[in-house]
Formats: sequence, C-alpha cells, structure tokens
Amino acid sequence: MRRRKKPGAKEKLLSYEDYLCREPEKYKSHWQDYFHEQKPIHVELGTGRGQFISTLAEMNPHIYYIGIEIKEEVLLKAVEKAEAKKLKNILFLWYDINKIHDIFDEEELSRIYINFCDPWPKKRWVKRRLTHRRFLQKYQSILIEEGEVHFKTDNEKLFEFSLNEFSYENFRLNNITFDLHHSETNDGITTEYEDKFSAMGMKIYRCEGIKRN
Amino acid sequence: MRRRKKPGAKEKLLSYEDYLCREPEKYKSHWQDYFHEQKPIHVELGTGRGQFISTLAEMNPHIYYIGIEIKEEVLLKAVEKAEAKKLKNILFLWYDINKIHDIFDEEELSRIYINFCDPWPKKRWVKRRLTHRRFLQKYQSILIEEGEVHFKTDNEKLFEFSLNEFSYENFRLNNITFDLHHSETNDGITTEYEDKFSAMGMKIYRCEGIKRN
Repeated sequence: MRRRKKPGAKEKLLSYEDYLCREPEKYKSHWQDYFHEQKPIHVELGTGRGQFISTLAEMNPHIYYIGIEIKEEVLLKAVEKAEAKKLKNILFLWYDINKIHDIFDEEELSRIYINFCDPWPKKRWVKRRLTHRRFLQKYQSILIEEGEVHFKTDNEKLFEFSLNEFSYENFRLNNITFDLHHSETNDGITTEYEDKFSAMGMKIYRCEGIKRN
Repeated sequence: MRRRKKPGAKEKLLSYEDYLCREPEKYKSHWQDYFHEQKPIHVELGTGRGQFISTLAEMNPHIYYIGIEIKEEVLLKAVEKAEAKKLKNILFLWYDINKIHDIFDEEELSRIYINFCDPWPKKRWVKRRLTHRRFLQKYQSILIEEGEVHFKTDNEKLFEFSLNEFSYENFRLNNITFDLHHSETNDGITTEYEDKFSAMGMKIYRCEGIKRN
C-alpha cells in the first residue's frame, strides 16, 4: 500500500523547533554541547509514533533521548507526544538512518534501540536490514565501550538473522528472549506496533548486543 | 514411564571390547595414545542409539569419535551399529557426563556434540541441563582453542536458555538456526530422535558455540 502523504505534515513538523533538530550534522561530536549537560545519549532508530522513546524519556530524566525517523507524518506524532508531556530530555531527527555516521562521532552514544524495523525479507534486500553487519559496524563505532544495542522484532527470521549478525560482529549477546511478553526480562515499555501485534497473540523476540572492550 | 531394563544388555555391551572402553579415567590426558594416531577427537554427549555419531565416523576417517551414554540398553544399539559398519575411528563410553572432567584433560577435544538432551524444564532442574553454565565451563576447559560445541534441540525454551548460557560463558555463537531442516546450514546428519520428530513437523533448533582465544 502506498503511503498517503498528509498535507502540511512537513511544515507542522518543522515548526517544533524545541523538539526537532534541523541540522543534526552540525552537532556531530558535540551533542553534549547541544544538550548543555553531560548525560548519556540513547538513540532510537526508526522512532515511529514515539510511544516507546517518550515513555523512556519520562522515566529517565538523567538520560538524553534522540529519536530518528524518516517518515514525517509519523515523526510529527512523536514530536506532539513529547510536547504534550513537556519532556526536556528528548529530541527528534527527521533523518535517514543510512547516514547515521554523518551525525554521530565515535563513542558518542551509550545505547541504540531498534524496534520492529522493516524485516526486508527477500535475499537481495538483506543489506537494508538494520541489524545487517554493515549497520552493526556503524553502531560499534558510534557506541561507547560496553554500549548496548537493544533489539525487538516480531519477525522470527529477522531475529534469527540478527543473532547471527550480532555474533559475527563480536557483540556479546544478552537477555535473548523468544517471547518477551511472557518473559522475566519484560519491562513493559512498548511501541504502538508492539501493543497491536502482541494483543493479536504474536510473539515478540528481543535481545541485547553489548559492544565488547 | 519407567525405563524397562533389558536383561543381559549390560553383559552384551561389555563384551564389545573393541568399541567400549571400560576404564576411561585411565586415558585422561593421553587419548591420542589410546588411538595410536594423532587425530582430532570429537565427542558426542548422550550418544543414544548412535546413528548420528556412526554416520559422522563413516564420513570422516581423519577424526576420532567418542560417544558417551549412561543408558546401557541404548548404548548397546550404538555399539552394534559401529560394529556392523566395521568402523575403526569410533569408541563408546558407558559413563556419566557429569564426570566428564575425570576422563578428558584440558584442551583434549576439538568438538563436542549435544543432540536433543533432556530439557529439564523445571526451574529447580536448571543445573542439570547440558548447556547450563556449569557444564559450559567444563567444555571450555577440555576444548582446544577455537574448539566447538554443536548443539541441536527441538525444545524452544531450552534453545533460548542455551543461547544465553553460551553468550554468558563467552562462546562465540555461529550458524544459529531456528528451523534446521529448512535451513542452508543443514548437513542432513540426524539422530534417530530427530528423524522421528522432524517427520512430525517439529522444528529443530541448532547453533554452534566456539571457544574464543
């Protein structure tokens, strides 16, 4: 199904100056200056409508959150959520994840969240998966030592693929679960997509990949 | 169901002197002497009726295989298979895997196979699982550097548990698959149990854990 463009979404999005950074490349290697305070930075890749990241931001004022999303219509929803909650530790980037290296320098991030990314099921699309080794190599570089990638999906094949890629790239795997919502490791912080699919009885897979020293 | 003891199985088993080593503790640290030649040693823990290990032994004359099994009735079947094939590179031990440290010294083994071990599903039994960290630590010690544990199971919860344990014990995971019989990594070498359960449509999970340098 073709994505319907909502008229005016782009203009409305760009009007949220406190929550949207329009020129993120400028802050590469000095995001801490942007935020005025030294705090760990956690990034969500493909932040969607923002339920997950705004819940975290509300719970953890000692952390800065950056949500990255390419689709302006959904990103607008995320920004609106953050504004409604008057969050002070969250920022959104309307940006292409493929170019993440242009906005974060080595060891700038403490954690990366990847939630329900596109599984790109066909073999010729494998390099587009956000847990493909070419992406994991980028994450390795921008994460601090012992920095973490937290990954959730409802797609079993993508999960199997991702475990192999994490191992191949020498991440230490942790808290691997094949059924998060019936697991002890469930923290209850969900995305909109996750609520919907979990309610339908779909299993949610989750793991963490830890950057080794 | 209580296991029925087959009368005479023990005596018959012990009569196969070429295939059954009765005092394995004696060969700790010099199994290569026992075999008279320097070849890598691969061990199967819980070798059952021996289809898996005797197939491998037939295919790979450059490797010595040792199958360990505690149940004499099934071990007898394994020994009979090896004799029928006149295999020269296989040996069986009627032995308790818990005491594996008493028969293998540090870095004596190149590979360990664990196929469809008891999942011990209850939490109070967790330490009995052959992929529990207390066992993985033993395997680490008796494996050479880059030595491998190859693990198969049809039990999803045990597989999830095992991936976490391998990671925790710093094994490098490789070739993780959630459906071996529909996977590119399938080599077609199966156990009797595997044939039966796979034919019933059960998924077979598999991974390798590699000992790091």
